[in-house]
Amino acid sequence: MSDLTHTPDWVKNAIFYHIFPDRFAKSDAFEKPTLIEPWDTPPTRFGFKGGDLVGIYEKLDYLQDLGVNAILFNPIFRSAANHRYHTHDYYQVDPILGGNEAFFNLLDEAHRRGMRIVLDGVFNHASRGFFQFNHILENGDKSPYLNWFHIYGFPMNAYQGKPNYSCWWNLPALPQFNTDNPQVRKYLFDVARYWIMQNIDGWRLDVPFEIKDESFWRQFREATKEPNRDAYLVGEIPSEAQDWLQGDMFDGVMNYQFSAACVGFFGRDYRDEAMVSGMMGLPEVPNLDAQGFARRTRELLDIYPRQNALAQLNLMDSHDMPRFLSMVSGNKDVFRLATLFQMTYPGAPCIYYGNEIGMMGGRDPENRAPFPWDESQWDHDLRNAIKTYAHIRLKNPVLRTGEYEPIFAEGRQFAFVRRLENERVVVALNAGNESWDLNLPVNDKFNDGQYFVDLLGGENAVVEEGHLRKRRLGAWQGVILRLEGSAPG
Amino acid sequence: MSDLTHTPDWVKNAIFYHIFPDRFAKSDAFEKPTLIEPWDTPPTRFGFKGGDLVGIYEKLDYLQDLGVNAILFNPIFRSAANHRYHTHDYYQVDPILGGNEAFFNLLDEAHRRGMRIVLDGVFNHASRGFFQFNHILENGDKSPYLNWFHIYGFPMNAYQGKPNYSCWWNLPALPQFNTDNPQVRKYLFDVARYWIMQNIDGWRLDVPFEIKDESFWRQFREATKEPNRDAYLVGEIPSEAQDWLQGDMFDGVMNYQFSAACVGFFGRDYRDEAMVSGMMGLPEVPNLDAQGFARRTRELLDIYPRQNALAQLNLMDSHDMPRFLSMVSGNKDVFRLATLFQMTYPGAPCIYYGNEIGMMGGRDPENRAPFPWDESQWDHDLRNAIKTYAHIRLKNPVLRTGEYEPIFAEGRQFAFVRRLENERVVVALNAGNESWDLNLPVNDKFNDGQYFVDLLGGENAVVEEGHLRKRRLGAWQGVILRLEGSAPG
Repeated sequence: MSDLTHTPDWVKNAIFYHIFPDRFAKSDAFEKPTLIEPWDTPPTRFGFKGGDLVGIYEKLDYLQDLGVNAILFNPIFRSAANHRYHTHDYYQVDPILGGNEAFFNLLDEAHRRGMRIVLDGVFNHASRGFFQFNHILENGDKSPYLNWFHIYGFPMNAYQGKPNYSCWWNLPALPQFNTDNPQVRKYLFDVARYWIMQNIDGWRLDVPFEIKDESFWRQFREATKEPNRDAYLVGEIPSEAQDWLQGDMFDGVMNYQFSAACVGFFGRDYRDEAMVSGMMGLPEVPNLDAQGFARRTRELLDIYPRQNALAQLNLMDSHDMPRFLSMVSGNKDVFRLATLFQMTYPGAPCIYYGNEIGMMGGRDPENRAPFPWDESQWDHDLRNAIKTYAHIRLKNPVLRTGEYEPIFAEGRQFAFVRRLENERVVVALNAGNESWDLNLPVNDKFNDGQYFVDLLGGENAVVEEGHLRKRRLGAWQGVILRLEGSAPG
Repeated sequence: MSDLTHTPDWVKNAIFYHIFPDRFAKSDAFEKPTLIEPWDTPPTRFGFKGGDLVGIYEKLDYLQDLGVNAILFNPIFRSAANHRYHTHDYYQVDPILGGNEAFFNLLDEAHRRGMRIVLDGVFNHASRGFFQFNHILENGDKSPYLNWFHIYGFPMNAYQGKPNYSCWWNLPALPQFNTDNPQVRKYLFDVARYWIMQNIDGWRLDVPFEIKDESFWRQFREATKEPNRDAYLVGEIPSEAQDWLQGDMFDGVMNYQFSAACVGFFGRDYRDEAMVSGMMGLPEVPNLDAQGFARRTRELLDIYPRQNALAQLNLMDSHDMPRFLSMVSGNKDVFRLATLFQMTYPGAPCIYYGNEIGMMGGRDPENRAPFPWDESQWDHDLRNAIKTYAHIRLKNPVLRTGEYEPIFAEGRQFAFVRRLENERVVVALNAGNESWDLNLPVNDKFNDGQYFVDLLGGENAVVEEGHLRKRRLGAWQGVILRLEGSAPG
């Protein structure tokens, strides 16, 4: 079974765009229920904006232009919640999203363009309307599905009183599966395989740590990798995830440790603690200087097998936390430079929809606002910068799968080299308000006279006296320098 | 649109078998949830016996042997109720029944055998787990589906207290659709068309009088007849149904008026009032002598257009009332003779599963007991008699689409003639405990010397002195006499 440890190469080369389907794009191409909220009013906790998959199909050009080649979706299956984590039917795409037909059209077109689609698999809990749970609600202890959930008494307190059945975070809307029941496992694995066999490119696994039996995820991996070994399995594990990334469960995790390091270093002087605190339930988000950041970003690769480190999902934020820009008090320099780092670090960068145009947003529902398609509301400079970084990553394999080695870290100044075969890229980031005369000691790496092209368009940098030198980097500027010619043996 | 008045010829020639899917036959061919009740214990109100469509597939030989060429189903769609009237998803056959795959296999095999399948369409109400209703339960007034139902307040009292939304018979489990919402209509018509286009042969429409807008059913007819004009639309209308059978709504109705007449005449001296009273909400089931029965059975044809009268579903009972045999205190002579009448009267006879082997059963759940496949529990004489009658009907078109004319009615003795082109059949029924020397005045119909073959195997009957004569008919005996040669001009 050693083959099962394989992680998909496409992930190592992917740039993801993370879409909350109700809020990204809305098409007029099909009829929806009439009571949809206006797109451009603030989002509410329970309201629907009517974003859909046809709308996303219509925006594939936008995504490709940005440099995106993979989409990570929040749940799309039929669900009585705007976030769709309350699954009603795992085999049906939500009708408000356009149903299965819209999804398959989107999937086919994405694949035609060489883009990948990863779905959100919510297998720990279902919903009160989910058939087998509703069956128990309706039939009580006469339901043949009684052992699909953990029911502690009748009548069931599903819609009033204290829930007397096992549910996630004691929320009655989210009854937890009895995954010890082999029929439940088979059902969930069948769902997961079905969609893989329909050609989706992977699963993001919601709260996997809630299913406290590792055999479940080992079996899940076998069930889904058998039809497609290149299916991406990425777990929602906010903490360090060594146990999950040993080849027998996930390919990668949602790398919130990466996000925390970025907040801690780039955001250090601009943190909005009301936004940062309690992020993803992590104990703290420590402030970091460049040395700490160098150590941590190295560590976040070293603690995992290499093939998993390269398949991490490196995100700045998500639908479950305030947007990065809000965590750093709206400072776009901070966000832009952090994104430059994200786009030059190993692991698949993931852009939460709208971050690229400068969307801010605190906790739910603010972080799930509709994407404004009126371009006058966009920060075009920010978007152009991120687009530039993304395309540089796409053009340079070394930025995707090359080795990562910090070479300079002092105060707010940080530089690292990426190495892949004969390719070398040096990235230098000035995460401070002082300008920085770049002068990196590289005598153990490069020869005098070698020079680097500035991929962001500035003048070349040259190795002189064992140092890589370049005109000063302004406050919050970064450079991506590619060695011309081959590196010294 | 006059074409819309057409009723399907196959119905006029059909013999239906009415199956309550949880209780007819259970296959071991696929896995079910584990907590199914044992088949041979008494049925309970909420329990599941695990009958399924694969089991029915395996019994098609049994049904064909009996003379059945059409199946009328109680609901088969996914539902959290053993009767499946609480629809959870109109596009999915219930997984306990084997799902869509089992249904399509059954449908294909039935069609290969020349058998028809009519499904139960429950379009007045859904269930608390039905997606669009559950959506409102979960999202309150933020649900875009709010106008799919009539909601009178929040929080909704769905599982406790007095329901504050429109529901059938004020049962909170059965929320009623807002059929004034064009999107709801479209949804329901789409469902109905979808299954017609999947080749089902028609719809039995549940409680259609609850949708108090005839335009709904007119539009329904257009939507379903357009893909297949031979789709059978049969309404659950227990009362006289003149308004429904004018060519713009249904082809026929479930003819409970026929059942009532049979109870009133054949059952007169054996009625178990506890069983008969309140039958289908009808005001009363009057006792009838032969004259009254002759008048009523004539009337039940005359009040409808001929093409609708021939497409009536003539049933003795159903899942919604005690079995006929229980209404007549278990007297099998009564039931057998009533069935002989049913099989020789215009309109499609419908056998409620198990009646043919002598199953008894009072109100729900007794009338929904599992079919005993242990043949030692069957009344083989009864079954053979009914099978014989059915096959005689199948062999003689005159019994299906011929004219119906009572020719003798006195006390408990009743006879009628069926006429189709040159064919003539005389049926005589002795619904009493005295024997009857058959001597029917037929001088306006037949010539002396003409003779009739006894299709049930007795000796011939002859016309003498203007009378059709035959050896005496014993108590509760009937004969089916077919004229040899052509009828007089």
